Amino acid sequence: MARIRTGIINVTGYAGIELARLLHGHPKVELVSVTGRSAAGQKLAKVFPHLADIDLTIESELAEVDFAFSAMPHKASAEAILPLVDRGVKVVDISADFRLKDTRAYPQWYDFDHPRPQLLQTAVYGLPELSRDRISKAKLVANPGCYPTGALLALAPMVKEGLASGDIIVDSKSGVSGAGRSLTISTHFAEAVDNVRAYSLEGHRHLPEIVQELELLRPGFKPAVTFLPHIVPMSRGILSSCYIQPVAGVDKKKLRELYGDFYKGEPFVRVVEAPPETKHTWGSNLCLVYPSVEPRTGKVIVISCIDNMVKGAAGQAIQNMNIMLGFSEAAGLEALAVYP
Amino acid sequence: MARIRTGIINVTGYAGIELARLLHGHPKVELVSVTGRSAAGQKLAKVFPHLADIDLTIESELAEVDFAFSAMPHKASAEAILPLVDRGVKVVDISADFRLKDTRAYPQWYDFDHPRPQLLQTAVYGLPELSRDRISKAKLVANPGCYPTGALLALAPMVKEGLASGDIIVDSKSGVSGAGRSLTISTHFAEAVDNVRAYSLEGHRHLPEIVQELELLRPGFKPAVTFLPHIVPMSRGILSSCYIQPVAGVDKKKLRELYGDFYKGEPFVRVVEAPPETKHTWGSNLCLVYPSVEPRTGKVIVISCIDNMVKGAAGQAIQNMNIMLGFSEAAGLEALAVYP
Amino acid sequence: MARIRTGIINVTGYAGIELARLLHGHPKVELVSVTGRSAAGQKLAKVFPHLADIDLTIESELAEVDFAFSAMPHKASAEAILPLVDRGVKVVDISADFRLKDTRAYPQWYDFDHPRPQLLQTAVYGLPELSRDRISKAKLVANPGCYPTGALLALAPMVKEGLASGDIIVDSKSGVSGAGRSLTISTHFAEAVDNVRAYSLEGHRHLPEIVQELELLRPGFKPAVTFLPHIVPMSRGILSSCYIQPVAGVDKKKLRELYGDFYKGEPFVRVVEAPPETKHTWGSNLCLVYPSVEPRTGKVIVISCIDNMVKGAAGQAIQNMNIMLGFSEAAGLEALAVYP
Amino acid sequence: MARIRTGIINVTGYAGIELARLLHGHPKVELVSVTGRSAAGQKLAKVFPHLADIDLTIESELAEVDFAFSAMPHKASAEAILPLVDRGVKVVDISADFRLKDTRAYPQWYDFDHPRPQLLQTAVYGLPELSRDRISKAKLVANPGCYPTGALLALAPMVKEGLASGDIIVDSKSGVSGAGRSLTISTHFAEAVDNVRAYSLEGHRHLPEIVQELELLRPGFKPAVTFLPHIVPMSRGILSSCYIQPVAGVDKKKLRELYGDFYKGEPFVRVVEAPPETKHTWGSNLCLVYPSVEPRTGKVIVISCIDNMVKGAAGQAIQNMNIMLGFSEAAGLEALAVYP
Repeated sequence: MARIRTGIINVTGYAGIELARLLHGHPKVELVSVTGRSAAGQKLAKVFPHLADIDLTIESELAEVDFAFSAMPHKASAEAILPLVDRGVKVVDISADFRLKDTRAYPQWYDFDHPRPQLLQTAVYGLPELSRDRISKAKLVANPGCYPTGALLALAPMVKEGLASGDIIVDSKSGVSGAGRSLTISTHFAEAVDNVRAYSLEGHRHLPEIVQELELLRPGFKPAVTFLPHIVPMSRGILSSCYIQPVAGVDKKKLRELYGDFYKGEPFVRVVEAPPETKHTWGSNLCLVYPSVEPRTGKVIVISCIDNMVKGAAGQAIQNMNIMLGFSEAAGLEALAVYP
Repeated sequence: MARIRTGIINVTGYAGIELARLLHGHPKVELVSVTGRSAAGQKLAKVFPHLADIDLTIESELAEVDFAFSAMPHKASAEAILPLVDRGVKVVDISADFRLKDTRAYPQWYDFDHPRPQLLQTAVYGLPELSRDRISKAKLVANPGCYPTGALLALAPMVKEGLASGDIIVDSKSGVSGAGRSLTISTHFAEAVDNVRAYSLEGHRHLPEIVQELELLRPGFKPAVTFLPHIVPMSRGILSSCYIQPVAGVDKKKLRELYGDFYKGEPFVRVVEAPPETKHTWGSNLCLVYPSVEPRTGKVIVISCIDNMVKGAAGQAIQNMNIMLGFSEAAGLEALAVYP
Repeated sequence: MARIRTGIINVTGYAGIELARLLHGHPKVELVSVTGRSAAGQKLAKVFPHLADIDLTIESELAEVDFAFSAMPHKASAEAILPLVDRGVKVVDISADFRLKDTRAYPQWYDFDHPRPQLLQTAVYGLPELSRDRISKAKLVANPGCYPTGALLALAPMVKEGLASGDIIVDSKSGVSGAGRSLTISTHFAEAVDNVRAYSLEGHRHLPEIVQELELLRPGFKPAVTFLPHIVPMSRGILSSCYIQPVAGVDKKKLRELYGDFYKGEPFVRVVEAPPETKHTWGSNLCLVYPSVEPRTGKVIVISCIDNMVKGAAGQAIQNMNIMLGFSEAAGLEALAVYP
Repeated sequence: MARIRTGIINVTGYAGIELARLLHGHPKVELVSVTGRSAAGQKLAKVFPHLADIDLTIESELAEVDFAFSAMPHKASAEAILPLVDRGVKVVDISADFRLKDTRAYPQWYDFDHPRPQLLQTAVYGLPELSRDRISKAKLVANPGCYPTGALLALAPMVKEGLASGDIIVDSKSGVSGAGRSLTISTHFAEAVDNVRAYSLEGHRHLPEIVQELELLRPGFKPAVTFLPHIVPMSRGILSSCYIQPVAGVDKKKLRELYGDFYKGEPFVRVVEAPPETKHTWGSNLCLVYPSVEPRTGKVIVISCIDNMVKGAAGQAIQNMNIMLGFSEAAGLEALAVYP
């Protein structure tokens, strides 16, 4: 059977090269076209030596493909995707451009007016564990942000079941690759190594995604989510420590059962029996979730770990593609984490 | 004027070698004796090449000194200190053995019965910013834990002023040196690098210290503190993100004024204007504090950064000694952070 | 077609878990048995959460298998392997126990007398690029050491072609995982991070391997190899900088052609056009080689990069198995490097 | 006695901020002026929070000072320094602009024609251990490069004594801060972490310095130095592994005596008894030197470790100032290394 022809718009960022790495090993698709602005005209192998097995030249425009991924920054991504959508090409967008349903959120959080508001209603927020059916019918999937992926998978069972009050804190610790490949002083090696810092204390762009999806989980639920991201000195991984005030006392054993049931059969979410570590997910599409109760205060603590480049970006995008195209959901994503 | 003769019990752990480093540069004291069990009989320079300027042999018993620091593990520290205290030697104990006022806390949290419960009432918990006067008169000072130091300095103004409800979460990110110099698989380089993990989800030993001192700050205050420590891949530093539900709406500007006033004139606490980073404190005795309010939820977020080896251990011990001996509080602790 | 039943002796070290990771994704084999001493009786998933997809219990004795890998330490490895060899099971030994042809080398370098010296002559040193034919007929393959793998692939073309004088220096920089999973103070995170050190200045155990194989490459060649390993603060990777005094002036272009021809068609050696970085090989079985000439001194400098856990251990072991069993040499080893 | 008024031209690079850190603790001088182009007009504390104790505003022009340090890049440094030199202000230049005696070296290695060639003859190359007397009489000292400092201190005794043939290899491993504070993709955290790479294989700018100073050590000596620098994932430190072909067999014990005698009484060079580690020098002005002989090949291996920011830049600059101004050579540089 012929392989599906896929392309990556903006292969030169970290999400883009991770897509290339994973698509190269996918049994059902062929990567036939990759684009990039500054590097257009160069061989992929020259710019990214670890991708040397992929014999492609970086182009300025995407070739004809059956399926496209966009790893463009926000705003530019929508512009690049709209012609494809109009031509009927199925797309997974890794940017934020189709994640938020409320049109007004774009000028507020991303400083641009959305060019096609009506598409926001048909685009599907692609967190497979919460929206698998809708993804399977979607033409355009908005791949979740890296922080929301970990946070939502940690929070969803408590919220869905009605056990969470609205008092929720998500304290996330991310590797530096989450900040992208653009050069900044805070991601300069000598500044970022041996260092931890918090940022976006006034509100991070991933907050509205988290709130939107939590509200969708349970009609009428209006949580007050305090989300604080931190950068820690490693390249990959996000550990989110989620603190939930339960509506009533929660038994740890029952909590674990609830989470176990909620994620039963999921190929990429594992409810683990000991606190997980980001390193356990390095290079893999897994999300490890550990629900717990502080024995003195009764606060529910749920910890989740993902690789921000995989389940937090490129891996989840491929998982979404697999669902959209009717492939086995884990196709191309079976590799175990690289450890240590 | 003759220098004060000081000694370090158990120089061979990280707190011990940091004490040696800092005391070597102290203008008023002379380090005359250091002990260590396994390394007894060896030159300090041989075991710790970076201390080669200190010409001492590691002994099994402390020589006669005017002032002693204990960097022994808990339980063993009390045993080593009691004879000194009985002889009238002033002591700063870096272990937990004299931090907790409630005798019952020792079997509960540290698995031993306290050998001299009455001393718990006269020993002073040595957080200078909260207890300077009592430290100045103390014979025995219990040096705070590394996590409590950062957490208490972040929380104290809110609590003291009566602005904090009891709903408090402390999410701390520590460098690996906090786990000490004893070998464990989780501090093995290949396991700890590129990794973040949470631990002690059932309750960390530093929790009762935090609660005890918060309660002392305001009569009748009974906080429900959820404290979760994490290990991040760097050797030094603790960043604590403290989430406080205020009793009423808090204005960010007034909050900053409150913190500014509270720490006015403090040599080692600085209320900073941008979110601090642990690297800003590397090797120094500073605690950087950043108070803030989440604009949507109204949750107060206070971030503090310290070097766990300095303000979180050896530096604070010397600060306490300076107060106990009437020296300038910053003597020997003026060096700026080593950056980057 | 039925999969080949494979087993790993001592899965609990880093080479062992890396074998498990890679064998799990191998299309032609099934991992059916893993052993380990201290962890015997426990589920693999519990001890190594990243291997949770492999449903095996760690055993004290290997089950019946068609093919075995030994990841035991030296001496113990020979003891574990001999019964298997005697039963006709094909084996790849990752330890040094069958690498050296000279029986006397074992007491000299490894402190034990070899239990079966005659096997040293039939065991094949498993560097496929140099000994593919003999590997294909071998029953017992001695997997090369991590340092020799990188050094030999860098040096072989120069030596084989008779261009190298005997004056050779190999300066290698290794990640910390090369020191294994056993706990030592020098691999304690706080000691190893932010640090570089040289070790084994009196002679490293991998030296005799390097010399033996270089001598075999060219009859009569008796090199004086100075080999100095260093540890740098990362978990994986070896970069070897090899300095060769050529017998006559060497032209850089011809040197590159020589290397290109030598490794033409090799699935896992790539002669690259820019100085390689260890990160380009992270998690993959590639060896990147960059030959060069210092323009003032005429010294030939060849740089090689490998992932010490893959091409330097488990990956090369599987490459050897593939050759021994007539599989495609790259089977199970096609994954691209995980970057960044 | 009034303190000497000092200034730093270009405080905003890593050498500049390290000068500020160290000068702040110097007992004999006062830092009164710091300049920087992009940050001019801002408080030093705002741009560099760890320097908050220094109450200075970054200026565009240096104020009147008694002594100046230039931490400008090459070419711009000479331009900034010449007016000061003409006014009789003593200067230490951290750039390369006055290191090389051969005028032709500047267009060749640094792409500019030297603006004042005659000054090259009176400027003194400021490696105190080799040129203390000349430094003490100098008006303008050229601070050595970071790599040459470690390499020359490792090589000098062998060369001076006539024991070294010209066949010398210097293989250096540097932390990333050596590449400066300017943003580049190779110093982006996610690219530099978990990575080792070699660079400047065609010749590094520090090579002519090394050769020039070696030649000056022994009349008629014309070494063929192969110098290869590497970047390893840590912020500070350089370990240089120097391989010297001796003119005749060298006894290790006598070699150690030679080095011990050569550096006897030196405040900042220590001939150590075990292979040194860069971490032993973190934040300090020490150079640790370990001479050794490979027992099989007879090659002399000398390893040196420095903190590239201190002995490799700002600390050595202050050491030079101390000598030029008749202060104790160690003034302001006595702090022990920060470990771990």
